[in-house]
Parts: sequence; structure tokens; C-alpha cells
Amino acid sequence: MKELGFYDGKIVEKNQPVICIEDRGYQFGDGVYDAWMILNGKHFLRKEHLDRFERSCKMLDITPCYSRQEMEGFSDMLLEQSGITDRGMVYFQWTRGWQAPRSHVAVAGVRPLLTGSIMPVAAKPAEYMTKGCKTIFFPDERQHFCNIKTLNLLGSVMASNAAAKAGCYEVIFVREEGGKKFVTESAHSNCYAVKDGVIHTAPLGKLILPGITRGVVLGIAEKLGIKVVEEFCTPEFFASADEVFVSAASGVVAVGSIDGLPVGNGAGPVYKQLNTEYQKLIDMN
Amino acid sequence: MKELGFYDGKIVEKNQPVICIEDRGYQFGDGVYDAWMILNGKHFLRKEHLDRFERSCKMLDITPCYSRQEMEGFSDMLLEQSGITDRGMVYFQWTRGWQAPRSHVAVAGVRPLLTGSIMPVAAKPAEYMTKGCKTIFFPDERQHFCNIKTLNLLGSVMASNAAAKAGCYEVIFVREEGGKKFVTESAHSNCYAVKDGVIHTAPLGKLILPGITRGVVLGIAEKLGIKVVEEFCTPEFFASADEVFVSAASGVVAVGSIDGLPVGNGAGPVYKQLNTEYQKLIDMN
Repeated sequence: MKELGFYDGKIVEKNQPVICIEDRGYQFGDGVYDAWMILNGKHFLRKEHLDRFERSCKMLDITPCYSRQEMEGFSDMLLEQSGITDRGMVYFQWTRGWQAPRSHVAVAGVRPLLTGSIMPVAAKPAEYMTKGCKTIFFPDERQHFCNIKTLNLLGSVMASNAAAKAGCYEVIFVREEGGKKFVTESAHSNCYAVKDGVIHTAPLGKLILPGITRGVVLGIAEKLGIKVVEEFCTPEFFASADEVFVSAASGVVAVGSIDGLPVGNGAGPVYKQLNTEYQKLIDMN
Repeated sequence: MKELGFYDGKIVEKNQPVICIEDRGYQFGDGVYDAWMILNGKHFLRKEHLDRFERSCKMLDITPCYSRQEMEGFSDMLLEQSGITDRGMVYFQWTRGWQAPRSHVAVAGVRPLLTGSIMPVAAKPAEYMTKGCKTIFFPDERQHFCNIKTLNLLGSVMASNAAAKAGCYEVIFVREEGGKKFVTESAHSNCYAVKDGVIHTAPLGKLILPGITRGVVLGIAEKLGIKVVEEFCTPEFFASADEVFVSAASGVVAVGSIDGLPVGNGAGPVYKQLNTEYQKLIDMN
């Protein structure tokens, strides 16, 4: 089982210099990415992630120079060469490509560049699914196009660094607009608060990523007859919820505390129902 | 006179692959940059730009591995090797460096990476200083840490692409918060509206870049006894101003129109006074 790098159709060493300094990804973050899990040695929700990857490209007006079939082939090649037979993650990014001299304005006809990687991923600590993980509230100062999975990730990087420093797994992003505070999502997850059996989560739009796992989780909730309200909630609502949990490609995780204060009892009944069904999907993969 | 690339202390070809795919600059835009002009064959305001470059690093908690003296040496080397004797631009960026496997959370002890370039820059069209340039209003959907000169530039890239498509030089960014609309800055400039002889421009803070040229322009205004009000103005205020102009390291430019509608008479008396003094600074360089 090994980590591998990927550059424009070929497997490369991760410490191999392959990018030019004026790749628009390197100077502007002018690109998009997507990533999915390998579970039980197989691609999990690859189609859904590649669908979103294509939508992200479209929204930034990047025209991929590889077809869907080729993308699948690259990911199959990475999986095979990595020797990963259990858990891993496949990562791809398109940048708008290399253009000199540096200019904000993209020149037409530049060939976009596909890079990526595969890596083994350890299972999350078991207590994340029982006691829940630790989180902090963090100001959401990110751009207003969070619906596009772009390489402009400094907002998430700063939040994740703050979380790690506080010994936490994630943040609960709080955006402030016109004097009002509301929860959007997390640094690399969507987030949910449960009150009186109802799941509350931010609505789709420019302020959150349309998480693939979010879609799966809400689908499971519907199937189980659990009511979902897609609306912005205050941080106080989250802090006093019966349950809080977060979801990402890497899994659905209960939240045990925010800013050191306990939330419910960690994994609550709604989380447990959802995660049981989610695990069944993984088992069937 | 030639373009040159720069990588970690050495001059490189611009199409030379030197960056690894998991440089944090390439996957997260986790880095900062600065750039200054060569005018009359000499560095212009280099000290001020290097001061801000260091402040940007500090704000992102990136510790440069080259001293101020070394940075000056690198830029001298680039200038000399480029053969630029008139106008050019020196560009440098620090990224947090290379770290695998990919993780939002920065690992301590990673060596940051300095890259850069130098390029000849043609003088702006003379009519920009008389009739003024064309601009468009554009929604400011950028992050709320625009005071840091980071590599997360997609907001500016999208705006600049829209401006170029409309045959314009710049945008006037309009941010909307809590139902209120106000002008912040431009995609690669600060912007100003003049009414009744008073200059209005957005205040320093998280929503604009503390432009080096902005500082110089406001200093000139003070010297000339022109009143400056640092406050957010509505797009209507800009559209109906006596004069509008923008400033960047590349120069101070009058605005002739926004969204196809004329603003004043292009270069107005206040702009002309300021730019005359600014040109004197350049002549003395």
C-alpha cells in the first residue's frame, strides 16, 4: 500500500517537480478539485464525485482535456498501482493550466492540467462514532462561491489549523452578515444540528459545498422518515442542539463538543440511525 | 529584455517544471505574494512592497527562509539578468511549502518555498490618463481577508475575466451585506471617487488590500491639501461622482466609464494633480 502522485495521465513520485511556477493553479488557485474514498478496496461514489468535478469545471469555465472514461481509467490505474485493498482516497484537480507572463486574465486556448494522488487512509477513531469528535466555532471568512470546489482553500486551511491547535477534528463555521450570525458548514464537511428529532442543515447555495455525502445523508433521512429542514441556524441553536454531526467523503462523524462544551451526548439516536444506514452502503460497495 | 523565472534562489526557465503537486500553494493557494515595478530601470518602492510581503507572511504564519537582504539580492539579480532598462515588474511569492500526504492542516517544520519572476511591462495606453479606462461593476464575492495579499485570487480572476470580456481594464467591486451594497476596491487596484473636490475611498480593514500605491496617493493628497474621506460608498455614489480613478503598483489610472456609462469627463482635475505628483516620484526614481 503506497501513496502515489499523478501528473497529466502518468503516475509520478510525490516529490517529483512537474509543475511550472506560472501554472495558474500555483499563482491564483485557478482550478477545482474533487476526491473520493476507496472503501473495501473499491471506488465509493466515484460517479457522483466525477459528476460534481465536471460541474465545478463548468462553473469556472475550465474545459477538461480528458473524458469521463479516461478519468475513470486514471483512477483505476492509481488504485491498482497503489496496492490499496481496504481504505484510501483518490484526489484529482484541474487547473486552468500554464500561461506566461502572469496575468489575472486567462488567455484562451491554454491547456488545463490534471494532477492528483492516491493514498491509504486510516479509519477514524472509533470514539468519533460514539462520544463524538471535538469541534470549535470559527468565523467563516471564506469567499461567496463555496458551492464551487475550488483550490482557493485558505479559509479552510486557517480554520483547520486553528482546530488542530485546539486538539479538535473540525470547525463549525459561523458567518456574520448584516449583524446576524449563522452556521454554514465545516472546514472539510457539511454540518447538521438535530432538535426534537428534526435535522437542520444549511441550504444549498453559494455559502456551502453541495457535499456528495450530504446528499446521501439527506437521502437516508428521507428514506427513514426523519424530517429535514434546510435553513441557516444560529450558533446558539447548534450549541444547544440534541445532536450535532458532520459529514464528508471520509465519513459521517458525531460531534461531542463545540468550544469545549458538550453537545447532547455525542452520538445520538438520529446520528446512529443515519450512520448505520451509511455503513450499510459502504458494506455493499 | 527578457522574462525570467525564479525558484528558491535561482533563475529558472518559465516552462521548467520545479514545483511538486503537493506544494501547499498548488493545492490550497496557501501562500502570499507581492510585486513591484521597475521604473527607469530601477526598483520602485521596493522597500514598501517587501515590508508588506513580510507582514502578509506574518498574518498567515509563514516564516520566510530568506532574509530581507537576500530578497533584495534576488531582485537585483533578476533585474540585472533580465536586461530591463526601463519598465518591468518583479514578482515574488512564498508558499507554505511541500507536504505529503495532502492535509488542510499544516505540518510544522515544512520549509516554505520562494518563487518569482521578472518581466518587461509596456506603458499603459496614454488615453487611460486622459479619457480614462473602461470599467464594470462586479459583485465582490471574495473572502473576508482581502487585507492579506494571498494566492487565493479566484475572485479577482473571475472579475478580471469578466472585465476583459467586456473590453474593460478593471472592475469596481460591489460587496453586498445585509441588503446593503458598497464599493470595496478593484480586481488588482484600489479605487476612488471624487465629489466636490473630496476623495472618497474604502477604509483599511479586512475588505480591501492596503495598497502601497494607495498609501502613496493618499500621502500626495494630504500634501496637496485635498480632503480624503475613508468610508464605504454606494455604487450609485461612484456612478455619479465627478471623477473616479484606480491605483495599483502599475500606475494611477483615470476611469472614463462604468458599465458603459461615462463618469465625469475621464481624467478630472483631482486625478490630474495626483498623477502629476505621482509621475514626479517616478521621475525621481
